[in-house]
Amino acid sequence: MSKGQRITPRAEDFSKWYNDVVARAELAEHSPVRGLMVIRPRGYRIWELMQRALDDMFRETGHENAYFPLLIPQSFLAKEAEHVKGFAPELAVVTHAGGKELDEPLVIRPTSETIIYDSFSRWIQSYRDLPLLINQWANVVRWELRPRLFLRTSEFLWQEGHTAHATEAEAEAEALLIMGLYRRFMEDWAAVPVITGLKTDSERFAGALRTYAMEALMQDNKALQAGTSHNLGQNFAKAFNVQYQTQDGALEYVWNTSWGVSTRLIGGLIMVHGDDSGLVLPPRLAPDQVVVVPIWRSDDERTAVLQVSERVRQVLCESGVRVRVDDREDMKPGAKYYEWECRGVPVRLEIGPRDVSEGQAMLARRTGGKVPVRMDELAEFVEETLKTMQRGLLDSARARMVQNSIRNATMEQLVEKIGSDGGFVFGGFCGSADCEQKIKEETKATIRVLPDEEFRSSTPPEKCVCGEKAVAEAVWAKAY
Amino acid sequence: MSKGQRITPRAEDFSKWYNDVVARAELAEHSPVRGLMVIRPRGYRIWELMQRALDDMFRETGHENAYFPLLIPQSFLAKEAEHVKGFAPELAVVTHAGGKELDEPLVIRPTSETIIYDSFSRWIQSYRDLPLLINQWANVVRWELRPRLFLRTSEFLWQEGHTAHATEAEAEAEALLIMGLYRRFMEDWAAVPVITGLKTDSERFAGALRTYAMEALMQDNKALQAGTSHNLGQNFAKAFNVQYQTQDGALEYVWNTSWGVSTRLIGGLIMVHGDDSGLVLPPRLAPDQVVVVPIWRSDDERTAVLQVSERVRQVLCESGVRVRVDDREDMKPGAKYYEWECRGVPVRLEIGPRDVSEGQAMLARRTGGKVPVRMDELAEFVEETLKTMQRGLLDSARARMVQNSIRNATMEQLVEKIGSDGGFVFGGFCGSADCEQKIKEETKATIRVLPDEEFRSSTPPEKCVCGEKAVAEAVWAKAY
Repeated sequence: MSKGQRITPRAEDFSKWYNDVVARAELAEHSPVRGLMVIRPRGYRIWELMQRALDDMFRETGHENAYFPLLIPQSFLAKEAEHVKGFAPELAVVTHAGGKELDEPLVIRPTSETIIYDSFSRWIQSYRDLPLLINQWANVVRWELRPRLFLRTSEFLWQEGHTAHATEAEAEAEALLIMGLYRRFMEDWAAVPVITGLKTDSERFAGALRTYAMEALMQDNKALQAGTSHNLGQNFAKAFNVQYQTQDGALEYVWNTSWGVSTRLIGGLIMVHGDDSGLVLPPRLAPDQVVVVPIWRSDDERTAVLQVSERVRQVLCESGVRVRVDDREDMKPGAKYYEWECRGVPVRLEIGPRDVSEGQAMLARRTGGKVPVRMDELAEFVEETLKTMQRGLLDSARARMVQNSIRNATMEQLVEKIGSDGGFVFGGFCGSADCEQKIKEETKATIRVLPDEEFRSSTPPEKCVCGEKAVAEAVWAKAY
Repeated sequence: MSKGQRITPRAEDFSKWYNDVVARAELAEHSPVRGLMVIRPRGYRIWELMQRALDDMFRETGHENAYFPLLIPQSFLAKEAEHVKGFAPELAVVTHAGGKELDEPLVIRPTSETIIYDSFSRWIQSYRDLPLLINQWANVVRWELRPRLFLRTSEFLWQEGHTAHATEAEAEAEALLIMGLYRRFMEDWAAVPVITGLKTDSERFAGALRTYAMEALMQDNKALQAGTSHNLGQNFAKAFNVQYQTQDGALEYVWNTSWGVSTRLIGGLIMVHGDDSGLVLPPRLAPDQVVVVPIWRSDDERTAVLQVSERVRQVLCESGVRVRVDDREDMKPGAKYYEWECRGVPVRLEIGPRDVSEGQAMLARRTGGKVPVRMDELAEFVEETLKTMQRGLLDSARARMVQNSIRNATMEQLVEKIGSDGGFVFGGFCGSADCEQKIKEETKATIRVLPDEEFRSSTPPEKCVCGEKAVAEAVWAKAY
């Protein structure tokens, strides 16, 4: 879309609004190969900030990064029966390389359990080698017929953690530890509230014992699965013969977990925080947190405001704020405001000749409000503003999630709610896959999770929405 | 190779020594797919440290990171005639995806000029969009029949810079700026001296106008091409129609550069600094710079030395030193020393009961020498030691490079030197591709570069080694 064009309002067409925001904020674009995307510098920088935050969390909890091959022998995937069934339809296959047809076709990794546990089988000998806590930052390919930038692309970037433990309890604890880190990242960095919980069998990862997930609610009231953590049991250990000698000299299979988040999170950020003026970014993940726009008419004014702007940049930079000065000559201030608004920069500082003489700057927040700030208080004020905005975004997103959730729903209420404005529907669940499937066919809603304790209703539902006895509480929603 | 086995001495078999060091330091291993490697955590951490250093340099000089698709339509490569000719034999080709045969086969990127300049053709409209300075951290695939870990693998990790400029002079300046950054990285971080210069036509990048390169000398006196920077002229701009409107309203093709370094650098580090005890790492790229080995017999001693060790860890950590305490219970101190030596940790601190009572630690340097250091001077002493070692490694590597170079060589001397102990042979070059080819056939040596001014001999050679009039000075060597 060209620069002058307006962004489609959310209420008019949410999906078009999303595409407009991605284009106008210059985050990503479709590549000539259908389904693959180009992540532009402004989008990639958000990913780098996410990576840095997550990587620090992984490292602090003892995980180490490594890198495993892009290409996996087709036979490897077949070693775990459910796994290959789950991924076969999405594979990209290399049949020729180096000018020859390959003896065995290679698939581009859709996920790396198989190739990683093959290495684990060599690295792990005894209980002393456990736990083994590995993470990989990589690209993966899962062929996608209805691509959406960031949300569904045939290639995406992600991290995939893979660990091996001596006991089932340790593997379970790891899978849950990671869900905790993910949730903390979503709340503290992305300012996105999530509901965490267990997936039902129908949404479980292909090859896992149990899949935990976190789900966030977008502004169109559809859910986005934002990250998953799997207790893989001994399924892959048995398929790849990953055994260790216990302290008593016995030989046991290890227990594995795997977990990942991807560039899809960027799509989530956009759909949770964005507004009709474009992107809104939580300050901690904003490539530029502050843009300084100097305003001048004469050359004298220009010299003065640019001087002050540069000083402001230095001061904020020293306080650890990511700041840039927009001193482009051939553009009016209003056009600059508009552009940086589209791009989601949290704070704009306007500095004109009068501000210079009065020793102040005008501070405009992306989420609304404009105040003059004295120069000698600027750094402190900006830092405080960024913190308040970060908290504010999480608070509004959480309020919206609560507002758009109903609890203890009957089947009628579920159908009505999903069919009208959507959102999260909490209700009892009988545990039957048939019941789940029937609701899906009728409403297109699926069980996003069986929520963790802190997200459950104060009075646990006694009956499933279908009327049978409930074995758990569930959260239904239409999902991306 | 198993842990107990000795490392083959360099003098016995350099290539075997290399493989032993990579295995024993747990840097990487071959994957089940021939030619692809697994980069283990200790190897990957070195790459991350390299990335951080280089990325900072790129950012400081105005470059931005982005991400482009892994898969490229086969027809894209064909748009630049020399380019496709150069890469066709090494391509890996995806013919099937999503359960179907593709209409057009896709190649896994061997390098990304084509797919990136396709995006540039949309991003660049006017002179205001220039220069465009982009970098990508990514995996690439070039099918390799004789794989060596890090040095030649079918998949490798790298960064590829791609820039567009308004004029030839600006593109040339960019290509040279990057060679300067690369050289600074090699000297200041990797402690590896290099010779920079221009490639002859026969070694030029497929599709480039001019290729600059840096060459380092390994301990077996073979050269390693450690990085290249290409002035691509307008070749790709014309193939992908990357045009911009000048200030006068005319339409011009842009001038491109591209440049890259890869995980191959890790192979270079090993072969420049390693010794018969294993890996030697320059402190600035060492994942662990200091390992503390506590020594105890009784439980009382154990408590005391572990307490002191932990304090030492904290103090060093606060000084920004990467340090770990090796408190494994079931291993003798000597075995620990041996293991950390293999892994190239620059400094080892031994702390026993007597050291505790005397308020000191024994400091052993990976490159030799052991001294007691007073606890209250430890942080400062360690920092100084690391700096000295960093400098010392560069100095010895440089001395070795000078010692193993001959200048103003005749053909006879060239043949003799290359045929005996190898090294860099400086001599005149007539500029003829036939002459170059003849020497290659006879000696297996190639012209590594026509060296930049500061590496040239004080008296420029008047005659080519073949006897004809020289047009430039050249550096010959056998190469990896």
